[in-house]
Amino acid sequence: MMREVAIIGIGETKIGELWGSSLRELGIHAGLEAIQDAGITGDEIDKIYIGNMSAGKLINQELVAPMIADYVGLYETPSVRIESGGASGGAALAEGYTAVASGMNDIVVVGGAEKMTDVGDEEAKNILSSTADREWESVFGATFDSLYAMMARYHMAVHNTTKEQMAQVAVKNHFNGARNPNAQFRREIPLEMVLNAPPVSTPLGLFDCAPLSDGAAAVILCPAEMADSYKGKPVRILGYGTGGDHLAVHDRKNMDVMKSTVGAAKSAFRMSGKTPDDIDFAEVHDNYTISEILAIEDIGFFSKGDGGPATERGDTALDSIISVNPSGGLKAKGQPVGAVGINQAVEAVIQLRGEAGDRQVEDAEYGLTHNLGGTGASAVVHIYGRWK
Amino acid sequence: MMREVAIIGIGETKIGELWGSSLRELGIHAGLEAIQDAGITGDEIDKIYIGNMSAGKLINQELVAPMIADYVGLYETPSVRIESGGASGGAALAEGYTAVASGMNDIVVVGGAEKMTDVGDEEAKNILSSTADREWESVFGATFDSLYAMMARYHMAVHNTTKEQMAQVAVKNHFNGARNPNAQFRREIPLEMVLNAPPVSTPLGLFDCAPLSDGAAAVILCPAEMADSYKGKPVRILGYGTGGDHLAVHDRKNMDVMKSTVGAAKSAFRMSGKTPDDIDFAEVHDNYTISEILAIEDIGFFSKGDGGPATERGDTALDSIISVNPSGGLKAKGQPVGAVGINQAVEAVIQLRGEAGDRQVEDAEYGLTHNLGGTGASAVVHIYGRWK
Repeated sequence: MMREVAIIGIGETKIGELWGSSLRELGIHAGLEAIQDAGITGDEIDKIYIGNMSAGKLINQELVAPMIADYVGLYETPSVRIESGGASGGAALAEGYTAVASGMNDIVVVGGAEKMTDVGDEEAKNILSSTADREWESVFGATFDSLYAMMARYHMAVHNTTKEQMAQVAVKNHFNGARNPNAQFRREIPLEMVLNAPPVSTPLGLFDCAPLSDGAAAVILCPAEMADSYKGKPVRILGYGTGGDHLAVHDRKNMDVMKSTVGAAKSAFRMSGKTPDDIDFAEVHDNYTISEILAIEDIGFFSKGDGGPATERGDTALDSIISVNPSGGLKAKGQPVGAVGINQAVEAVIQLRGEAGDRQVEDAEYGLTHNLGGTGASAVVHIYGRWK
Repeated sequence: MMREVAIIGIGETKIGELWGSSLRELGIHAGLEAIQDAGITGDEIDKIYIGNMSAGKLINQELVAPMIADYVGLYETPSVRIESGGASGGAALAEGYTAVASGMNDIVVVGGAEKMTDVGDEEAKNILSSTADREWESVFGATFDSLYAMMARYHMAVHNTTKEQMAQVAVKNHFNGARNPNAQFRREIPLEMVLNAPPVSTPLGLFDCAPLSDGAAAVILCPAEMADSYKGKPVRILGYGTGGDHLAVHDRKNMDVMKSTVGAAKSAFRMSGKTPDDIDFAEVHDNYTISEILAIEDIGFFSKGDGGPATERGDTALDSIISVNPSGGLKAKGQPVGAVGINQAVEAVIQLRGEAGDRQVEDAEYGLTHNLGGTGASAVVHIYGRWK
């Protein structure tokens, strides 16, 4: 009943502290690059989806979807913003996919954009915490960092996960990020540097935490049967899944499982007919090092409790058992919150086109992206396939 | 290729200054009422869409979709927030429709919720203005009121629309709202009261402006072929359309046309196979009296410039040529911004079920809802049909 969907164009800004660019400028850059990559014209575009976490608080602007559409020159094209905290980009991609798969639209642009650095660091962290439960968590002083630190402690207590294992996530992702021209941090870092970093919220140190970044990214979707008629080298989206969980961490039965990830991954694997074994690389939501360990367990790449040891064994490094975060992930590529899911999709396309250069996953055939909202209240997983 | 979609359940809070209820409580009320009305169980629900304009700024909380899902008891059910300013509710309904029509989901809840009164009046107005262009309009002092006042002045200058004609919109909508138990203002008002009200932004007086309200509403969607197996009396969604325009008013060629409305209506009529003549009643976005006049022209119920005279002739009153805003509209029913589109859908269902009591449009067979974002940067139109 649903049509197959392809990505035929990608665009992405460099990620970082981009003080010289406003949100609308970042959106223009990513959008126009994607349109150019696909070789389409503006009037072919039926609809625009924009993932964004909190422009209202960060730049005092709601209705950012028409704003970006307008400045890309597509002011009469319908546009809508999708918000699911840190999973806004992935959630936008899911809605865009459905729009094309259903036959409702043919050519859809899905963008993600966030401008985190126009407010101070303190305020940016505070705004990020508005995706935790404000009334029952943040208001009592529980920051995002401390909520993830609790999950890390719990994982350490129950599964003997070590600080070294978590640190290895950061080391690996910086290694990969050093090979990504759009990454915020293009520097390899030694294990000792991560372990000796100043604490943010024990056991998480500075290098266990992803930065808060500015950036935007965009992909162009069309029905697979039309993909060959465009210039951009296509990649298939084979399926997606979304999942939910309690908003507040204290309401969850187990702090070592993200139910939202489990649900989203299960749906995505079912829809695509693939299994974790089929996947060659995964972009997972490593906003903290512990998050990557949780993700690779909850998606099903490793059994519960083996995420830390697997990372230490090197099983998630480039061209090992499963290449996790070949882009550098949120940790090194950067974290423009509501754009992250689209940054991940862009990396999936680059890898499946075989254009990832020094960080290319050899013979990559299937990829997965995992995007998380809040402290895990929402998750979106997409699975992609190479174009024959 | 797409399946027909039905609404099988509705829920709605009373609209008003609901200081005793938080956003999550409003969401619970509307959601549970809709679930009960449809006679479904929670585990049948595949996905939840929530329309909301600015919870980040209004209650310091993003990720409100999982929050509401969680507190309705559906924490593992995927949920996502849709934002399109004042058109957030309508935009959420559009995405929910596509999810069901495509076959991606069977049972979908679409809710809308906004809590406007936890900040002061001044701040609420300021937050509403964040759906105008902050960088090029609001920052220079252009409020929402003043931008709409400019459109009113332009319409008066070009089409000889009068203050009396605009005032008649308020008189009519208060007449209808007085017959709606969920309306914020249940009082008829005389024309003189509207004309002699204190000015808000000339030519718009106090009674030309809709209030800023708290409220929530929800509808349950399912494929039409499944609708008869549920308890709730179904109504068909025959089609929808979305439209866009420049974010800033000064970028538009003509201030007397909302291109977003024109585009959305055209798409909705095409998709549904209906014309303006087929429609028995319409809920249109009367955030200001001038907005209703623009809407009934741009949708095509009246020719450009005839919106004011038509209103004066009584052609938009209950059971006249086209019953416009039988619910009382934003003016009298109230304006819980991101919920408005769902409030409109709820009214459409009540009318097409024939359960609107004193405000029932006689023999209503087809209805239309029109939901506007910002000063018209986005618009969504839905068309509904009675269940034979």
